[in-house]
Amino acid sequence: MENRITGEMTERVKVVDATLRDGGIVNNFYFPAGFAAALYAANLAAGVDIMEFGYKVSKKLFDVTKFGEWKFCDEYSLRAVVGENNTKMKISVMSDVGRVDLKTEVLPKDKSVIDIYRIATYVSQADEASQMINYCHDMGYQTCCNIMAISRESEEDLRAALGKIARTSADVIYIVDSFGSLYPDEMAHLCDMYGEIAYKHGKKLGIHAHNNQQLAFANTIACIDKGVTYLDATVGGMGRGAGNCALEALIGYLRTPRYDINPILQFIREHLNPVKRSGVEWGYDVPYLLTGLNGVHPYAAIDFMKDGREDYERFLAEITKKA
Amino acid sequence: MENRITGEMTERVKVVDATLRDGGIVNNFYFPAGFAAALYAANLAAGVDIMEFGYKVSKKLFDVTKFGEWKFCDEYSLRAVVGENNTKMKISVMSDVGRVDLKTEVLPKDKSVIDIYRIATYVSQADEASQMINYCHDMGYQTCCNIMAISRESEEDLRAALGKIARTSADVIYIVDSFGSLYPDEMAHLCDMYGEIAYKHGKKLGIHAHNNQQLAFANTIACIDKGVTYLDATVGGMGRGAGNCALEALIGYLRTPRYDINPILQFIREHLNPVKRSGVEWGYDVPYLLTGLNGVHPYAAIDFMKDGREDYERFLAEITKKA
Repeated sequence: MENRITGEMTERVKVVDATLRDGGIVNNFYFPAGFAAALYAANLAAGVDIMEFGYKVSKKLFDVTKFGEWKFCDEYSLRAVVGENNTKMKISVMSDVGRVDLKTEVLPKDKSVIDIYRIATYVSQADEASQMINYCHDMGYQTCCNIMAISRESEEDLRAALGKIARTSADVIYIVDSFGSLYPDEMAHLCDMYGEIAYKHGKKLGIHAHNNQQLAFANTIACIDKGVTYLDATVGGMGRGAGNCALEALIGYLRTPRYDINPILQFIREHLNPVKRSGVEWGYDVPYLLTGLNGVHPYAAIDFMKDGREDYERFLAEITKKA
Repeated sequence: MENRITGEMTERVKVVDATLRDGGIVNNFYFPAGFAAALYAANLAAGVDIMEFGYKVSKKLFDVTKFGEWKFCDEYSLRAVVGENNTKMKISVMSDVGRVDLKTEVLPKDKSVIDIYRIATYVSQADEASQMINYCHDMGYQTCCNIMAISRESEEDLRAALGKIARTSADVIYIVDSFGSLYPDEMAHLCDMYGEIAYKHGKKLGIHAHNNQQLAFANTIACIDKGVTYLDATVGGMGRGAGNCALEALIGYLRTPRYDINPILQFIREHLNPVKRSGVEWGYDVPYLLTGLNGVHPYAAIDFMKDGREDYERFLAEITKKA
């Protein structure tokens, strides 16, 4: 098999494992004991570049008794797994705009094992996101910005938001297909549009795809072909609703000696399969296809599945407002 | 949402439902009573252009007590479902090279409701396939040729086989990703190569994809973008191992008034979900990814799954001959 990426891309690509963060949405971040430590070890052995441990959201906004520890990513939770993280792998957390108390909950970098803050924002929050990005940068962190739900925005509004984010100190701007509604050619178009704005400000691009139409991996490939270097994936595609690009598929695709699929396979066998067998559900199913097809938030499909409904035609009419 | 295909393609595209044929490999063609009739009705209502009912293989080679009726597609089986098929939808069957007794088992077209014979061949059987294609054509049928397992052939051998098939009376030549090992850019390259040889002989092109790497739909899209018009899919992606391109995803994608997703959704609810709940298994899983990644026949993965194995690392070593 020939290499799928060549030359400079081979070195520039960053594989980001977001299993605890996006997978945590499925199980309210209640992972079995040892899951995070085993994943950390597997990612290290596999050569994963960045491991996202979860969200960093405010305990003033979310009830700590209703979520597992990776909803909050306290320093002691992280250190219990990674110690001082004296490794090449970087540690990231995600914070939604307005959902973390910057002054008290974002420590100065020299007091934290976190390397990267990823700021998740809607187009309409670009100003507040910019402030958060710059704050985290000033505290000593690398920063990424994930602009969500872009498929429902006009290109004009998206460009305006991108222009604002490109002027921050963010290191990476992510193309995020929140609803799993985009096709590979649309991803390629977005790569051009994001690149046009981002590259002149020295930003890198990332891709975070969802699998509603079974296109998370294909859309990630489409972005790789366009030179996008920060690639989000989760083990087994674990993630909300239809889930994400599968880390094992991505590593298999990249086919470079920098990455080894075997530790991920071992982790699936020892840790992910038991979680799946315990009843935690994610992955492609018809309701997610229908929300993806219509650019609707997957929450509707998640509720439909939870209710044990199978009346797909009625659901389609509901989400397209024809019911 | 904008149309994904425009202009001439909107009319030229042919959606082919191969659920009974490729899905039948999963359950030895033992579908519940009423399944085929309901699928026929659903396909008709959905606007599907061609419905493949199954294989047409010789009862001298296969034990009729070990397979359901769609392994053989007897005229009386077909007519029990379709009558005289006084509809716009065409009926196809697939015959493997050397596995049907042409003289006794392929009736003259005026005695059959079958419209299309699809001849499945390996590159090495191109001469015999050519004879079969011409025989079926002379009996009055439309013909397609599916050249299988191409990922393990040299481009030279594949071109030679294509050259032979292009000189037959076949109407359509299919690009078949038997092992689910190909990526969208490779599909696009194959479209160019097949087209270069096929179009000058007046042939149309088709795509039959497998979902080992969760790319069946994406690879089908890549072919559509290249002007390929015969598009195979199965309801729910039902098919051997990781399965196929999902018909509902494809129809959703095409977004033309020629097709309606609702009858397929109804069929999934009423007929496909019960089959799945009865324990018939197909769809993406790690072992299929590994055979796809390494261009190995999915049989190895199917056996691995049947044996209840989860030692993926050892399996990977086995199929790459490193164990």
